[in-house]
Amino acid sequence: MRPNSRGLDELRPVSIERGFTRNAAGSVLICIGDTKVICTATIENDVPRFLRGSGQGWLTAEYGMLPGATTERFDREAARGKQSGRTVEIQRLIGRSLRRCVDLNQLDGFTIYIDCDVIQADGGTRTASITGGAVAVLEALLSVGRESAFLGFVGAISVGIVEGETRLDLEYVEDSNADTDMNIVMLNSDGFVEIQGTAEGALFSSEELNDLIDLAKKGISELQSYQQAVFDVPST
Amino acid sequence: MRPNSRGLDELRPVSIERGFTRNAAGSVLICIGDTKVICTATIENDVPRFLRGSGQGWLTAEYGMLPGATTERFDREAARGKQSGRTVEIQRLIGRSLRRCVDLNQLDGFTIYIDCDVIQADGGTRTASITGGAVAVLEALLSVGRESAFLGFVGAISVGIVEGETRLDLEYVEDSNADTDMNIVMLNSDGFVEIQGTAEGALFSSEELNDLIDLAKKGISELQSYQQAVFDVPST
Amino acid sequence: MRPNSRGLDELRPVSIERGFTRNAAGSVLICIGDTKVICTATIENDVPRFLRGSGQGWLTAEYGMLPGATTERFDREAARGKQSGRTVEIQRLIGRSLRRCVDLNQLDGFTIYIDCDVIQADGGTRTASITGGAVAVLEALLSVGRESAFLGFVGAISVGIVEGETRLDLEYVEDSNADTDMNIVMLNSDGFVEIQGTAEGALFSSEELNDLIDLAKKGISELQSYQQAVFDVPST
Amino acid sequence: MRPNSRGLDELRPVSIERGFTRNAAGSVLICIGDTKVICTATIENDVPRFLRGSGQGWLTAEYGMLPGATTERFDREAARGKQSGRTVEIQRLIGRSLRRCVDLNQLDGFTIYIDCDVIQADGGTRTASITGGAVAVLEALLSVGRESAFLGFVGAISVGIVEGETRLDLEYVEDSNADTDMNIVMLNSDGFVEIQGTAEGALFSSEELNDLIDLAKKGISELQSYQQAVFDVPST
Amino acid sequence: MRPNSRGLDELRPVSIERGFTRNAAGSVLICIGDTKVICTATIENDVPRFLRGSGQGWLTAEYGMLPGATTERFDREAARGKQSGRTVEIQRLIGRSLRRCVDLNQLDGFTIYIDCDVIQADGGTRTASITGGAVAVLEALLSVGRESAFLGFVGAISVGIVEGETRLDLEYVEDSNADTDMNIVMLNSDGFVEIQGTAEGALFSSEELNDLIDLAKKGISELQSYQQAVFDVPST
Amino acid sequence: MRPNSRGLDELRPVSIERGFTRNAAGSVLICIGDTKVICTATIENDVPRFLRGSGQGWLTAEYGMLPGATTERFDREAARGKQSGRTVEIQRLIGRSLRRCVDLNQLDGFTIYIDCDVIQADGGTRTASITGGAVAVLEALLSVGRESAFLGFVGAISVGIVEGETRLDLEYVEDSNADTDMNIVMLNSDGFVEIQGTAEGALFSSEELNDLIDLAKKGISELQSYQQAVFDVPST
Repeated sequence: MRPNSRGLDELRPVSIERGFTRNAAGSVLICIGDTKVICTATIENDVPRFLRGSGQGWLTAEYGMLPGATTERFDREAARGKQSGRTVEIQRLIGRSLRRCVDLNQLDGFTIYIDCDVIQADGGTRTASITGGAVAVLEALLSVGRESAFLGFVGAISVGIVEGETRLDLEYVEDSNADTDMNIVMLNSDGFVEIQGTAEGALFSSEELNDLIDLAKKGISELQSYQQAVFDVPST
Repeated sequence: MRPNSRGLDELRPVSIERGFTRNAAGSVLICIGDTKVICTATIENDVPRFLRGSGQGWLTAEYGMLPGATTERFDREAARGKQSGRTVEIQRLIGRSLRRCVDLNQLDGFTIYIDCDVIQADGGTRTASITGGAVAVLEALLSVGRESAFLGFVGAISVGIVEGETRLDLEYVEDSNADTDMNIVMLNSDGFVEIQGTAEGALFSSEELNDLIDLAKKGISELQSYQQAVFDVPST
Repeated sequence: MRPNSRGLDELRPVSIERGFTRNAAGSVLICIGDTKVICTATIENDVPRFLRGSGQGWLTAEYGMLPGATTERFDREAARGKQSGRTVEIQRLIGRSLRRCVDLNQLDGFTIYIDCDVIQADGGTRTASITGGAVAVLEALLSVGRESAFLGFVGAISVGIVEGETRLDLEYVEDSNADTDMNIVMLNSDGFVEIQGTAEGALFSSEELNDLIDLAKKGISELQSYQQAVFDVPST
Repeated sequence: MRPNSRGLDELRPVSIERGFTRNAAGSVLICIGDTKVICTATIENDVPRFLRGSGQGWLTAEYGMLPGATTERFDREAARGKQSGRTVEIQRLIGRSLRRCVDLNQLDGFTIYIDCDVIQADGGTRTASITGGAVAVLEALLSVGRESAFLGFVGAISVGIVEGETRLDLEYVEDSNADTDMNIVMLNSDGFVEIQGTAEGALFSSEELNDLIDLAKKGISELQSYQQAVFDVPST
Repeated sequence: MRPNSRGLDELRPVSIERGFTRNAAGSVLICIGDTKVICTATIENDVPRFLRGSGQGWLTAEYGMLPGATTERFDREAARGKQSGRTVEIQRLIGRSLRRCVDLNQLDGFTIYIDCDVIQADGGTRTASITGGAVAVLEALLSVGRESAFLGFVGAISVGIVEGETRLDLEYVEDSNADTDMNIVMLNSDGFVEIQGTAEGALFSSEELNDLIDLAKKGISELQSYQQAVFDVPST
Repeated sequence: MRPNSRGLDELRPVSIERGFTRNAAGSVLICIGDTKVICTATIENDVPRFLRGSGQGWLTAEYGMLPGATTERFDREAARGKQSGRTVEIQRLIGRSLRRCVDLNQLDGFTIYIDCDVIQADGGTRTASITGGAVAVLEALLSVGRESAFLGFVGAISVGIVEGETRLDLEYVEDSNADTDMNIVMLNSDGFVEIQGTAEGALFSSEELNDLIDLAKKGISELQSYQQAVFDVPST
């Protein structure tokens, strides 16, 4: 039995709030169950050196965990003077994924910075960051009248094999006991952007892989409805 | 005229929310006008090396600004690999101040970590961090039944001289044009913990100093009422 | 047409040399086409702090690229004072994968260090590191009479979609033009350890994913034969 | 009774030597009791990026403690690879204070570097650095014929409450037992540049604050006479 | 008796292989006994800032030890985030020495990077790096038709006093027991580039110094023959 | 003609002052011409990890250049967060040299830290650091009654070939134009501790090497008289 009697293919409750803070061009609070992430988007009038003169803009992402987001305090990386390997891995994934939301050729001269800061962690922080980050990207583009550069909502979810069951949207107690943990990022109904799966315990088979893929498709499709809905009413 | 027709000795609207996130022992969202800071308190079963065997506990603080908290993106210090001088200065002030809230002799074997992360900045982030942090300290002590070690609410506010006027609780547009900017921390009605004042423009005189002190006393007294009120009703 | 008229499901020439250098317990030179990696294994009598008293040993991996391994010089990370995000991501993948080769419960008190240093790069350096690293692990375990802790050869290969074709074992000119680039790690004929796929260009579909998986299974099965063969004759 | 029967409002013996070393444009050895600091001033033909084109020059300060300056060796910060929070806090204070000595509008294109290195420490090293630094600033400006940009001597002193007494110019044994420790910087007889006070033990009241301010005025006025006197005779 | 009955003035077996890897302009594997170093040379179209406009090119060197090169694993400096003092000292020596091989005035606009990575260590890695590096320099210059800028082969060897005997080309077991350890670099038969000698045990006398110098002259002369021979046959 | 009509084999004026500052166990100001270095010695009750239980004590050295010591300001290494290669090289030389002054077997449980900080630089700072450091070592040993562990004064001097002449004790204008620059460290009249020579311009011959050695012997012998003389009268 999953926590809260959740079905194997059921997402936790999802909420996405636009305009969460007011100084960034895009600012989103995404809550997926007890996981809460602030995703902001800032647009700067510059591109990295390797793109100067290329006619292309850029999008990059950074990720952080507030020290109080976890039950055991998470050491502040700024104080340690170094981002951990885990953080680096996650923010590279977020950046790669969200670059698929935008047509960089329409953003010449601009860099979009996405900052994903986890204020409460309960599993799935990297996928929540991607899903919320995509909303912040569109909000920021709208704020400068560049929404034509938006290609669609990238959505992301974790799936896994826990106690022999393939499950959608793992929360922390599941994630820490999973045999397989997989993060999947999609742009449309059968368009994969990224798939990262690891067998932490028992190995997984081709058949299980296909089951996990199907679960993820279902979950991401639902997330994309939440993302779309945010823009169907005026933001605060 | 101050922004929003505020009186010279008037605080911005204040709200303090306990139990803002659920994993940390104490978790507070403090909003003073448009400045918003998440303050969490975590208690660990250890003390720094220099206190081992001393019979004393410890309290330390760290401060951060989320990159999207400011209009122009604030570089992530974890990514730069270094906390700025400003950050170091601020977190040392927060730590020194909040250590006055607690009787370290009653906390042998424990370290309280206070993390203050600014999610939206409009002036006065360090004083809001202290004021909110004191609430998080008490909430955390209550969670472990150690509230007897709490000595009282430390409150903090900025005061300054702007356009020739002494003003309470500077917001960003005032702070950036102030001749004098002063941060004051008090534990009770005439008990100073810390005073840090800088003449950014015109020098200030002894008389002006006394006026600023009086303004701060008034403001901190009001903040201490807000701090107390948070505990007069059950937390969520 | 692939370079050197290679078939779509054909590996580049593979050679694996044991005992390549003599000071490390395990030392392997693996060449897959023009990609050449030195993989060494060292066994130390210690475990990381988080495993002390747990009854478990540990295996960890580090990855580096010699500055002269690439056509354009690759900046020495030791001189820059920091491993890049790419390096960190790769060595975490190598470590996770190779831990599946060994029964950590039989290695209490020991840490196996795998060092993978690329001396010539032509695509697929991370998968070559895993495949060669597994050989170094067994060689090192044999040197201390602990081969019973070896669970089997983990093999790894890249697959991808290039010019609309699914291809096995991408070399650099293919990799840099791939629409999809995927690294797959397996322990046995249908046991996946890790799958990491990224759509760099066009998105990939579930069907394409299955084709890529099949290619990888074929390639890894061949690599495992090469790994096994190394131990069928006495090492130098 | 204070050490050496010093009066509560009495400075320790003060000496200020110009031209202490010969390569820097300004070079001062300031001794206040047993605290000895070398303050040098160097003028470079450049301004920081944020001032380019602004018509303004700049002044910045750095502070260090020689490892042998204290009874227990003070770890060399260059070897540790990091300036401590205390050092950062001090050098920011010195820089802010000494910028008040000069009219930056008359120094377009120049940066003055002030380096304060403590060779022997006995309390009050940051205020001695400011007082000595101001002398080095004028010496350096004289060396390039820019003395018209000098606005006056900033002086600084510590005051505090020790054993219930308000005292001027705390030495180390007093400082380490003080209930309140305050550093005050002034430019003229009632012009405050900076005030930083901390209650280390008992809190301080408004009345005590005023007493400390009066002590500091007296002490700084005397220091300014010493600063002036250095230029009344030709330097060596 | 020396290991392998080697004579006091006898080099270990020497082999130098050109074109060891194919991406760098120059790539050499030098083996001196059991010491094996990969030396690559890369030419970039840029010079350091301090040489811009000077009409001069530049040559610089970096040195590294693969973690598996030594019996006890050598910590990876990229992972520690810092090159050790020993590494810095060695690569400065290599760079200074190899700059004597080339006429920098003929290399305006170019920087030659020499990377020396030890894959197996048995004493004398820094002198092997210099000797092999000189070969890589010429190979790289030939690859761009700039061989006229080559001034000759710098050769380097260690000499020392072990068990009261002056010996040529110390291997590790000798080096770690030497009373005196000296590294000597020469460009021609009586032209010294560098001499670095340290008495680790008993002090050395002027007379012993002269004996060591004579041994080094003999050894370097032989090494220069090996260097020359590499270019007497076409490279692979 | 040398500056100040100095003879080719003549030292600059030498002065060595004991007890220069009062907190360190040994504190020396050494002036050789216009080069001035503060050398302090501190004794701590600990040894590095690699010596625990060995019965041996340790001596280590650190070197720094005050920013104002040179005509062009020398960047503060603590602020840059890194010691330069030159600094690391120098302090390793100082440490190796001064360890020859003491019998480490008589210092079990103790580490002597030597800190050499250049307050004014005019060539020869590393050799002045060694010569002054040896005096600080003895002063510190006397302060704890351990002078029996002192083996004698190590002295050091630079020699070089400038304008075709072999010269003793190069000052900055000579050093920066030298063809050969050599630093020599000796413990007694024919006992070499270290020799480090570099041909910056023309190569040097065996014969020139011998001339330089002779000059150094003469200079070091004189320096050892200065070192001895410091202890022939009571320190202040």
